Amino acid sequence: MDRKPVIERMFYPRSVAVVGASADADKFTGRVLKHLLKSRFKGSIFPVNPNRTEVQGVRAYSNLRDIQEPIDVAVMMVPNSRLFDALEDCRAKNVGAALVLNSGFAEAGDDGKQLQEKLRAFARDSGIRICGPNCNGYVNVLDKLIVGTSGAFDRAEFVPGDIAFLVQSGGVAGVLLDLAQDKKIGLSYCVSVGNEADLDIADFVEYLAEDPRTNVIALFVEGVEDGRRFLAAVEKAKARGKRVVACKVGRSAKGHQAASAHTGKLAGSSLVWTQAMKRAGVAEVGDIEELVETANLMSKFDTPGGKRLAILTLSGGQGVLLADLCDAHGIALPPPSSSAGPLREALPDFAGLANPIDLTGQASGEPEVLERVIRSLADDPEYDAVLLVLVASPVAARLWTERIARFAPELPKPVAVLWTGGRGLDEWRNQLLVARVPMFSSATVAIRSFAGYFVSTATAEHVTANIDALRAKKAREFLRGGVAQGIAEPEAKEIAKMYGIPVPREFLATSDKGAADAARTLGSAVAMKLISPDILHRSDGGFVRLGISAPEAAVECYRDFVGRAGGARVRGVLVQPMVRGVAETIAGLSYDAQFGPVVLFGSGGVRAELANDVAMRLCPLSADDCRAMIAETKAGKLLAGYRGGAVGDIEAVVQVLLSLSDLAVELGPAVQEMDINPLIVAENGAVAVDVRLVAAERFLKEQDPWH
Amino acid sequence: MDRKPVIERMFYPRSVAVVGASADADKFTGRVLKHLLKSRFKGSIFPVNPNRTEVQGVRAYSNLRDIQEPIDVAVMMVPNSRLFDALEDCRAKNVGAALVLNSGFAEAGDDGKQLQEKLRAFARDSGIRICGPNCNGYVNVLDKLIVGTSGAFDRAEFVPGDIAFLVQSGGVAGVLLDLAQDKKIGLSYCVSVGNEADLDIADFVEYLAEDPRTNVIALFVEGVEDGRRFLAAVEKAKARGKRVVACKVGRSAKGHQAASAHTGKLAGSSLVWTQAMKRAGVAEVGDIEELVETANLMSKFDTPGGKRLAILTLSGGQGVLLADLCDAHGIALPPPSSSAGPLREALPDFAGLANPIDLTGQASGEPEVLERVIRSLADDPEYDAVLLVLVASPVAARLWTERIARFAPELPKPVAVLWTGGRGLDEWRNQLLVARVPMFSSATVAIRSFAGYFVSTATAEHVTANIDALRAKKAREFLRGGVAQGIAEPEAKEIAKMYGIPVPREFLATSDKGAADAARTLGSAVAMKLISPDILHRSDGGFVRLGISAPEAAVECYRDFVGRAGGARVRGVLVQPMVRGVAETIAGLSYDAQFGPVVLFGSGGVRAELANDVAMRLCPLSADDCRAMIAETKAGKLLAGYRGGAVGDIEAVVQVLLSLSDLAVELGPAVQEMDINPLIVAENGAVAVDVRLVAAERFLKEQDPWH
Repeated sequence: MDRKPVIERMFYPRSVAVVGASADADKFTGRVLKHLLKSRFKGSIFPVNPNRTEVQGVRAYSNLRDIQEPIDVAVMMVPNSRLFDALEDCRAKNVGAALVLNSGFAEAGDDGKQLQEKLRAFARDSGIRICGPNCNGYVNVLDKLIVGTSGAFDRAEFVPGDIAFLVQSGGVAGVLLDLAQDKKIGLSYCVSVGNEADLDIADFVEYLAEDPRTNVIALFVEGVEDGRRFLAAVEKAKARGKRVVACKVGRSAKGHQAASAHTGKLAGSSLVWTQAMKRAGVAEVGDIEELVETANLMSKFDTPGGKRLAILTLSGGQGVLLADLCDAHGIALPPPSSSAGPLREALPDFAGLANPIDLTGQASGEPEVLERVIRSLADDPEYDAVLLVLVASPVAARLWTERIARFAPELPKPVAVLWTGGRGLDEWRNQLLVARVPMFSSATVAIRSFAGYFVSTATAEHVTANIDALRAKKAREFLRGGVAQGIAEPEAKEIAKMYGIPVPREFLATSDKGAADAARTLGSAVAMKLISPDILHRSDGGFVRLGISAPEAAVECYRDFVGRAGGARVRGVLVQPMVRGVAETIAGLSYDAQFGPVVLFGSGGVRAELANDVAMRLCPLSADDCRAMIAETKAGKLLAGYRGGAVGDIEAVVQVLLSLSDLAVELGPAVQEMDINPLIVAENGAVAVDVRLVAAERFLKEQDPWH
Repeated sequence: MDRKPVIERMFYPRSVAVVGASADADKFTGRVLKHLLKSRFKGSIFPVNPNRTEVQGVRAYSNLRDIQEPIDVAVMMVPNSRLFDALEDCRAKNVGAALVLNSGFAEAGDDGKQLQEKLRAFARDSGIRICGPNCNGYVNVLDKLIVGTSGAFDRAEFVPGDIAFLVQSGGVAGVLLDLAQDKKIGLSYCVSVGNEADLDIADFVEYLAEDPRTNVIALFVEGVEDGRRFLAAVEKAKARGKRVVACKVGRSAKGHQAASAHTGKLAGSSLVWTQAMKRAGVAEVGDIEELVETANLMSKFDTPGGKRLAILTLSGGQGVLLADLCDAHGIALPPPSSSAGPLREALPDFAGLANPIDLTGQASGEPEVLERVIRSLADDPEYDAVLLVLVASPVAARLWTERIARFAPELPKPVAVLWTGGRGLDEWRNQLLVARVPMFSSATVAIRSFAGYFVSTATAEHVTANIDALRAKKAREFLRGGVAQGIAEPEAKEIAKMYGIPVPREFLATSDKGAADAARTLGSAVAMKLISPDILHRSDGGFVRLGISAPEAAVECYRDFVGRAGGARVRGVLVQPMVRGVAETIAGLSYDAQFGPVVLFGSGGVRAELANDVAMRLCPLSADDCRAMIAETKAGKLLAGYRGGAVGDIEAVVQVLLSLSDLAVELGPAVQEMDINPLIVAENGAVAVDVRLVAAERFLKEQDPWH
């Protein structure tokens, strides 16, 4: 048994079998062999074709089992109807990995989903790892090995480098390869992972984390099934000094629909994904070209210390456009500090020392001035990178590019060039690309790629949740005692109390007299709310009344609620003291299908959805996480004392959020959602006035499947 | 005197003089003549150079006055120190327009600003129209006339067409020309307007409105000085069936700073600009390539009926990306209706009829299927355009592009192609471009350009303000009676009342006894506010007290305010009835330096800025404008009865906003700002509880300079 990781056997095989290889090199079933033969692959190639003794000039075998040598990779080109027979041959032969290129699986309706499940089961059962189905294969650029069908693979004059592309869409893999070649951007590997029946992006990221030949991992992702495993792989890669950039599609409801049709996979909530990427220090970009260019900046240059760009432009108008784009993407444009002197010498007297720095037309004939200015900007500690905007003049091209190509690569910071238009100037453009100077033709792509490059690489510190097994057991028993998924007051408050979340002193009155007694006991003005499993939106129905100050009024209110409740089941009327504070907030948790529990905080009350003021973090949270998310919201700004107003007890909110985090970790998917709304925050303390909770449906049916 | 419009004389000159033409064709002062000689210009060319009898092979004159023929355009290449002498020659010769290419004017500090003012004064005084300074000249592509210095002009193999570019940045003019040539996009004219000392973008738009050879006007703008005149020119063009698209830069604070340095011009508030463009039916784009591509779609295709795109893709991943982008840019992706049948036949059985439509790899070998599908989508009334996503396979390129080039141009709707990557496939790409099929290489640019093309072309209907000269006179007199720019209660409310804005019944108490009397007169609970010209933020300082229910409490409050006011001047304490309502809103107006008065509405109260919930319109407003802007805000959603809550009197708000519009139109820049905050909206009526107003400084000093 080969003990090397299966992905190493895929990237560096000693032998590849092509099962179902066609003699026609242009057919889908013929192209894999054609590409292999065109590769610089020095290992053994075994076409398998029961009808021929030779395929494309290579000796063919009628069955995989007839091959004597061990097989690292078996590329499966047989029709789906014969696929599992052929896979049994793989099992018998104990191949490393089977690459399944065919479509007709999860992307193709219910029958296809079943077929894919069968494939997954085969992999689990046999130990043969499967890459695909519905993928285009992969390329090891470093060794010029092509295992796949894509037309883009066919035109390969790949530039070797340290960027690995992992792509869930076969078409996009080809596009990425094309773009990288165009820009002379160096790659290590490119893998089209397809439907991920077995090997998935997380497996490849984990392998690449240990691969010394890869420094940047660039992902085109529609969704990941197990978000936590994916994050763990990314964090492993980051811990080993790799940088990671992702283009995630399927973010909108529309995109998600298209994604589901395509890969049969949940695209997941966009907000949670973004939080997860922030947490892991992964840069996010929004289009394919930005993915390639951000990876290129990460590959060519050290991790930057900040997000500060110096823009040097021959076109004032483009400078203004770039300033707008920097503002929109959080890139700072500080004025020059140590470079101010050389700039002053180089610029016309009237030019201000702003940033973008407008060189004006006068500079275009003086390349040595340009060089001096760029060198001083690259030395200026105020900047993390320099972007030079050229205008497409053949005169300037001739004067400048050769010089830039010579000195820019030796500078300690990225010096990139934006050159829009530039028709007929390919020779000069290529001169810069050969010198590994990043070249952009679009201001938008340039600034977005720098924004990606500037993303903090710090991975969030790991937080340990405060687990209390006894409490967890008690809470789960309590939950299982419920009869419905939705759990409202007063039961939901019992769960909250177990986790130390403050709730008001309150009574569930089941008679008008009980209501009067409660009001009398609570002393001051009270609030009353109907408790009915059939009435969810109590405010909308007029079943919440505030500021009831006399026991008689409590009696009247009780009778009114019960009288108007109609056929709804009534459990009673909750009587609470009136709670006032600095702000009405919402605190809650939600169990994300991919990334597990997240805690959220924001402006609360009846208008919480209208306000749409929410910050979110993946669990478990640290106290600093809580403080940061509170500060992100308008509710947080109110609590901090807005315009001389009262200051709310932010640390009390932090404790509530930490409690939610503990609860989320302890109870896992058993709690799908929990809302504390309002969480009224006063100058001292915070009180959960209303609590709701949605348990997982499975939890109510099964015997504690999670712990 | 030539009676033709001066811009017509510039675009179609019979004669051009080049004053200060150099014999060296590569020098800045030589290039204009070089370009003219290279042009297909059939009129007369007169170099003016006192030191030579011949320049670049053309007979030269020592002075403009020596030329016998009339001169349509004089290009001024002399140093700024001799510019005005040369301009006097233009005046003596009565030339049509002087094109001033030199820099060193408003973009170059205070001296330059003065020089530019002198230039402007010369134009006004002499009647010689001036284009520039600090510009690159212009091109009449239809007649291959080049009057300018730009290197991009030099490489001209311009494609004639019906798009005119008007550009405030010379560098960007060259970039636009380059991009258009690359994409074989046809132009009529391209003008670099420079600093606009005299002729400005509005002048050119007005000329183009009447030009039968131009159908699309594309603008790259940093700012316009007289927004209303610019809008009038755009509306004239639109009324004649032209379409207009603009890329406005200098939108952010940073961009604005860069813009000011560059053109010495106010960039104006971004929100107001966007409202103005919406009102005029101008499409806005965010980058240079989008400007070219949107203009191209507008030029090639009829005005669309809606914003509905059919996306047909060979790459599922790109389909998902495009769906995300459509969602972000307000483009609808409806499912197929009449095209469902042909699609069902063409697609594999398992494929869903979603949009984006994933053709899957199977379709790539069947171009006739593709043609059938595209034809049925172009006939489907559900769609306004079709976007086809090709993957960069040479096989597919060969099979498909020729066919698409043949049938797509004859279809009734735009069929555009997105082809990212496509390395080495320029031949096929060019085949599509020659057939005038719009080609994109970036998904972002494609969707943003379609978003621009889909922008409603409707210009807002003109609203007539309700002008009352007597009231205006009275209000102006009242304003001039003030002593400071800031006018607060109770005077500001007098102005509001003149325009019929409801204010509460209230009293200015100047003694504790007066406060008690006022409270007694008003009967129920009152609010009290200190009135002091020195204390602006009364809430922050604790000088607003609500819910005072007894005359004794009013006495105590009065004494407290006055006691705590310290050295501040105290005019009294305002006593108002407590006003409650459905929502606290803000209504106001602001006088924009470029576009004149705008009215705004949104969530109000102390937290108005934190809520940042504002809609805005240029004055004058119609009642429908008011209703639309109310509906855009969260405050409007509250007033409409949020989650079963009370419904506010929206028509009362409409009346207040119309009153503000009337006031803004009548008083003009005399009122720079006016805030009604809060405007409390009840179930019946709306009341301006607090009103502030800022008068123009000039207004207080001068004798009514506006009316």
